Amino acid sequence: MTTESDARDELIDLAADFYDQFADGKIPEMKLPTRTKSNIEYDTESGVWTYGDRTSTRSANSVRGARKLLKAAYTIEFLADQLDEDRSSTLRELYYLSESWDNDEAQFKSQDESNDLVEDLEIVTGVTREDFHMRPEESGATLMGPLLIREQTRRGEREIHCQEDVGTGGYQIPNNPDMIEFLDDDIDFALAVETGGMRDRLVENGFDEAYNCLVIHLKGQPARATRRITKRVHDELDVPVAVFADGDPWSYRIYGSVAYGSIKSAHLSKYLATPEAQFVGIQPEDIVEYDLPADPLADSDINALESELEDPRFQTDYWEEQIELQLDIGKKSEQQSLASRGLDFVTDTYLPERLDAMGVI
Amino acid sequence: MTTESDARDELIDLAADFYDQFADGKIPEMKLPTRTKSNIEYDTESGVWTYGDRTSTRSANSVRGARKLLKAAYTIEFLADQLDEDRSSTLRELYYLSESWDNDEAQFKSQDESNDLVEDLEIVTGVTREDFHMRPEESGATLMGPLLIREQTRRGEREIHCQEDVGTGGYQIPNNPDMIEFLDDDIDFALAVETGGMRDRLVENGFDEAYNCLVIHLKGQPARATRRITKRVHDELDVPVAVFADGDPWSYRIYGSVAYGSIKSAHLSKYLATPEAQFVGIQPEDIVEYDLPADPLADSDINALESELEDPRFQTDYWEEQIELQLDIGKKSEQQSLASRGLDFVTDTYLPERLDAMGVI
Repeated sequence: MTTESDARDELIDLAADFYDQFADGKIPEMKLPTRTKSNIEYDTESGVWTYGDRTSTRSANSVRGARKLLKAAYTIEFLADQLDEDRSSTLRELYYLSESWDNDEAQFKSQDESNDLVEDLEIVTGVTREDFHMRPEESGATLMGPLLIREQTRRGEREIHCQEDVGTGGYQIPNNPDMIEFLDDDIDFALAVETGGMRDRLVENGFDEAYNCLVIHLKGQPARATRRITKRVHDELDVPVAVFADGDPWSYRIYGSVAYGSIKSAHLSKYLATPEAQFVGIQPEDIVEYDLPADPLADSDINALESELEDPRFQTDYWEEQIELQLDIGKKSEQQSLASRGLDFVTDTYLPERLDAMGVI
Repeated sequence: MTTESDARDELIDLAADFYDQFADGKIPEMKLPTRTKSNIEYDTESGVWTYGDRTSTRSANSVRGARKLLKAAYTIEFLADQLDEDRSSTLRELYYLSESWDNDEAQFKSQDESNDLVEDLEIVTGVTREDFHMRPEESGATLMGPLLIREQTRRGEREIHCQEDVGTGGYQIPNNPDMIEFLDDDIDFALAVETGGMRDRLVENGFDEAYNCLVIHLKGQPARATRRITKRVHDELDVPVAVFADGDPWSYRIYGSVAYGSIKSAHLSKYLATPEAQFVGIQPEDIVEYDLPADPLADSDINALESELEDPRFQTDYWEEQIELQLDIGKKSEQQSLASRGLDFVTDTYLPERLDAMGVI
């Protein structure tokens, strides 16, 4: 986590660069890694997506380039003031807020433009947008398990135990999960769960208590805040992370975004990705072994599986075997299909067997 | 709220009816209100959708009818056992679970079938599915405001103050909000907010503290649990409820589902709808008056507005005027477009002006 004053300094440094370039009689410019697909690589050593060596230059030597740097300067001023006043805003608010700026040329024409600029600033300064106090729109995970946290809020500190001080719905993490500190825990592993129905099943069956497990609700494709908290739980509490999702190609992508990051957020892999995260299931193998109720693969499923076979993140023996098996049996199953063996099967049998086989418990 | 044993009794009574009919040498049957659109009426007096007088009969005098009653009997047994053991399950789990039943004829062929049956049982018994302990898949609202609640959980009671004992993310209501009791409050009104970005803005600006307001995050089209808690806040705390959403026809529907219920859940209007709820905005009038950044209406927006003009829920002078104005100006605006006047405009100017004009504050 970057402190507010560090984040502010990084931004001011960037503006100071423009100033120095002007003072030296140079046309101001800003260097960025090239963000095309060909300059984004899967780094097999760290197990995440990273940028290659190529860079592009934004220069004020054209009207278009000058306008981009003008917008950057206004945005830097807004963000620096925001940090100064300890306030925050959303990406969408930034876009609308630019209408109040005194220079029409600095106003954003679309939200894509302001989003991209904030991403540029993240990359150039090495500070995440959360540390600029830019909040995402979507809310992140809920947590349930033997973990005591301290959250810094504008209304003072809150100490919350994620089992004893929360209702059935669990603890809702803030949009910037770096406002949380882990104070104490009794966690042996974290289980990141795709669907609300399964998350509620685990909580009702007391799985978090029985296994000292932190249940993280991914809510489908996980938000940045959810991936960040998962990463922090893994690194700071030094516990294994397992992802429990449906048995279809879209859910393997959910696992992939937790474990390996995404092309879009390649500059944040170090901050968001948990390459050590393992996939619990539903595995295609489970559909066969536990004879789970299944639906036939649709054409779009088959295409997605085939493109996963080409995806460097899934080029391991394990994934090739599972994906080929799935194409072979032509079936997919949901997490909740485990209920066909009774409501306790998932917590009494399936998860203990799988987590044991994976070496997690 | 129906107690577990009352809910169980209602279900057993229904099964006992089948039994008595058999004993009397009659072909068993079950009577239901006809659930076609023509038998659902907007009741102007209560201000919500209700069923008309027509009923249909499910009789075992055909194989198809007999199979429906068989499925009903198995489902009743499952639900009665579930209530007995104080457990719960999701609609999706019920569908999968039927695969474990010993009679193949009783198994559901699709989730639509099991969903419809549970709805039938709700209607016939007058007990909501939450009181059968059927949990929804989606999670409900978060609350932030001066409200002390007590939640019954499987792990004991939790007393939580929805400002002092929660983080920035607020209190996540349980899937069955009737597990909550309101213990104490200092609430003058509730504000149900569509988007996460705006909810976070109100919390950051301390609007809940400054105005003794309970901020309910609708999360787009509100889940049943969210509509239920909104209704309970209105009725039990005796405070006005205002809905704050985007200024487009889809958001007016969100308001409509909070205020008037929906055709699909006409049997639950008494339980879910808050006809007294008022619409704060964004009003088409506000787009003009505050000169908000706006997007042109798409064809689908225009169609939706025109169909709202035909919708009995929107046939009031207020809505006709607003919708016609919107068709006239051809624009829509989002809640967060208020940021074009600065980040505090919504809490310092817009909401106080609107809520005052509405008589809420």
